[in-house]
Amino acid sequence: MEQVRQKGQAAKAAGRLLSTVSSTKKNQALAAMAGALISSEADILSANELDIAAAKEKGLSAALIDRLTLTPARVQGMAEGLRVLQDLPDPVGEVISMWKRPNGLRIGQVRVPLGVVGIIYEARPNVTVDAAGLALKAGNAVILRGGSEAINSNKAITKALRQAVAAVGLPEDCIQLIEDTGRDAATALMRLDDYLDVLIPRGGAGLIRAVLENATVPVIQTGVGNCHTYVDGSADQDMARRIAVNAKCHRPGVCNACETLLVDKAIADSFVPAVIADLEAQGVEVRGCSEVKALCPDVKPASEKDWSTEYLDNIIAIKVIAGLDEAISHINTYGSQHSEAIVTTDYAHAQRFLEEIDAAAVYVNASTRFTDGFEYGFGAEMGISTQKLHARGPMGLKELTTIKYIIYGDGQVRE
Amino acid sequence: MEQVRQKGQAAKAAGRLLSTVSSTKKNQALAAMAGALISSEADILSANELDIAAAKEKGLSAALIDRLTLTPARVQGMAEGLRVLQDLPDPVGEVISMWKRPNGLRIGQVRVPLGVVGIIYEARPNVTVDAAGLALKAGNAVILRGGSEAINSNKAITKALRQAVAAVGLPEDCIQLIEDTGRDAATALMRLDDYLDVLIPRGGAGLIRAVLENATVPVIQTGVGNCHTYVDGSADQDMARRIAVNAKCHRPGVCNACETLLVDKAIADSFVPAVIADLEAQGVEVRGCSEVKALCPDVKPASEKDWSTEYLDNIIAIKVIAGLDEAISHINTYGSQHSEAIVTTDYAHAQRFLEEIDAAAVYVNASTRFTDGFEYGFGAEMGISTQKLHARGPMGLKELTTIKYIIYGDGQVRE
Repeated sequence: MEQVRQKGQAAKAAGRLLSTVSSTKKNQALAAMAGALISSEADILSANELDIAAAKEKGLSAALIDRLTLTPARVQGMAEGLRVLQDLPDPVGEVISMWKRPNGLRIGQVRVPLGVVGIIYEARPNVTVDAAGLALKAGNAVILRGGSEAINSNKAITKALRQAVAAVGLPEDCIQLIEDTGRDAATALMRLDDYLDVLIPRGGAGLIRAVLENATVPVIQTGVGNCHTYVDGSADQDMARRIAVNAKCHRPGVCNACETLLVDKAIADSFVPAVIADLEAQGVEVRGCSEVKALCPDVKPASEKDWSTEYLDNIIAIKVIAGLDEAISHINTYGSQHSEAIVTTDYAHAQRFLEEIDAAAVYVNASTRFTDGFEYGFGAEMGISTQKLHARGPMGLKELTTIKYIIYGDGQVRE
Repeated sequence: MEQVRQKGQAAKAAGRLLSTVSSTKKNQALAAMAGALISSEADILSANELDIAAAKEKGLSAALIDRLTLTPARVQGMAEGLRVLQDLPDPVGEVISMWKRPNGLRIGQVRVPLGVVGIIYEARPNVTVDAAGLALKAGNAVILRGGSEAINSNKAITKALRQAVAAVGLPEDCIQLIEDTGRDAATALMRLDDYLDVLIPRGGAGLIRAVLENATVPVIQTGVGNCHTYVDGSADQDMARRIAVNAKCHRPGVCNACETLLVDKAIADSFVPAVIADLEAQGVEVRGCSEVKALCPDVKPASEKDWSTEYLDNIIAIKVIAGLDEAISHINTYGSQHSEAIVTTDYAHAQRFLEEIDAAAVYVNASTRFTDGFEYGFGAEMGISTQKLHARGPMGLKELTTIKYIIYGDGQVRE
């Protein structure tokens, strides 16, 4: 794919220039980008109308069309996101540590941009702005490959952003949109070893799998979240009900929503009927193990498959278990290492859960819904990593950097 | 490959247990492993003899047979390497940072083991010991897949190491050797997503490429080094000659050896003949650009291909260039982002070189041969990363860890 290669080459060159640009200049660019979104609002909204009309014609779901839709308020919101990035500290240039060796060499570890960051994502125009802003603040060029449903919106947005970057004297080629939304272009991006330093797929399990199968560039996996809330026998049951309902119902379609509730058998008799009443009042479908069904015969039965299912919907599985050991073992077996919570008043149980659960984010007495770049104080986020390499959990600016070693010598050679 | 899956599953379970083991216990295991190498010396050496005999029969090179060969002194050296690891600080459990959010949530970033680390490497039995020791100290299980030429040695070594681990009460399954040295087993390891958290290929460009093409697990690339030494017009020429000769000749077959020498044209008349005399005295073949040939007509001509070649041999390319700008541009074009050096007395040139060169390690007035875990003070190393994700440069214990977020709440739900 010649288009992808050319954009990669241009991004690499622009990224090299951007890597040594001052924070002041990058913040000017972010301000200009925010301004350009506002001043190009009419163009962006009319491009977006084309996308929405096409989406309706294709019969896409209301949820998808909602995420695709831009309004003046949403354009304002995207611009505001760029202004928030201005205020965040620039991660580039931090000397993480420096030491002197016995031979006199001074070795320092310095934070530097990754170079060129690629992102493949779905029909959400706001991701175009977030990704471009985060990448630029961290000194990187970005190659954007959004979903075909948003192509007109993305073209209008990136046109405005590129003009703004150029207007402050930075290379506009640091923001690249792959306009070819076909599969071949995506595959070419996955194999763009010469120019791409990392590729972040943001989307469903099918997209992630396709990237893992085809990519030769380094990848950060995001997204799949089969999250649990474990209600310990010692829990404050009112708190546990509030947390369970929030984790499931606050936004059921996202990766940090709770999919399975585990309940200590010591409190199952009182807790299970109460929490099921809360959940059903919110319109949630409950699927229970045999102990749950014994307490609430009207709920659907859960099968083995439910324990490993990410519903992304108003459905929850509930299992009564023997206690903490079984909770840890169940979660480490069926979980996707995303976000896991315990509700407890027992100090030792809290500590063991924090230590033994293998996940990006482990909570005591809080909703799993907090796993999010904004909620952690990182400003925007590039996605939520569910792998262990390089970044884990919400990816902010630091996660878009790498390190290099700088070594000051005075003639040292190796003996 | 059922063997590979079974070993992966066993490693995953053992890694879970190892992840929460105390430093004291892990250090006991390292001491026991060192002791076991010594007490099993006779078994290890006789297994090694089988490998050497087979290697000779296959007509393998003297260099390869040398790296394969174990002696009592080399077994002592491997044991000593494990003892050195005992003294290094345990990276696991470090709270890198912790902060409180406006809603009262306390969010901490804690260093934890990766889980299961895979390594594919060549016929060097010492790598078996280094990798097992580093992985264990950082709380990981390891899956070793060494070259077929060393299979008997590796079986004898891992047998001793596993017994030692079991003797101190830790799960011996944290050290796994893939005994099937065929290609299918290697491919199965590259696709062992359910059990492997990272795969590190250590070897030539062909191995690295095969891993990138086939792997679905996260990979850290290592090794290819097309390293440069740039001699600035302001350089102390005696220092520059010592550094250039050391970077090329100290060990020409390794990744941090210098492959191209760039010389500022301001000093080419005096420096080029002098350094060529030094290099030729060490038996190095010089390939020069047209300006070099004009000064030293007897050297071979360099072609475009030489600038991108990693010789790994007693050969060096020399190019006369216009100065710092061309040096930076040449290195960022042809280099492999491994190790790059400038020799200069000019403060601004040193700073620009450090900032603008895109490589894992950038040196001022020192030999590129220092890019090495021991030389940096990390103890042993798992390899030298030439990618930007997760680890860059020498990989020690910290690079075998990841982070997890731990969140202390008191009932917070998301509004």
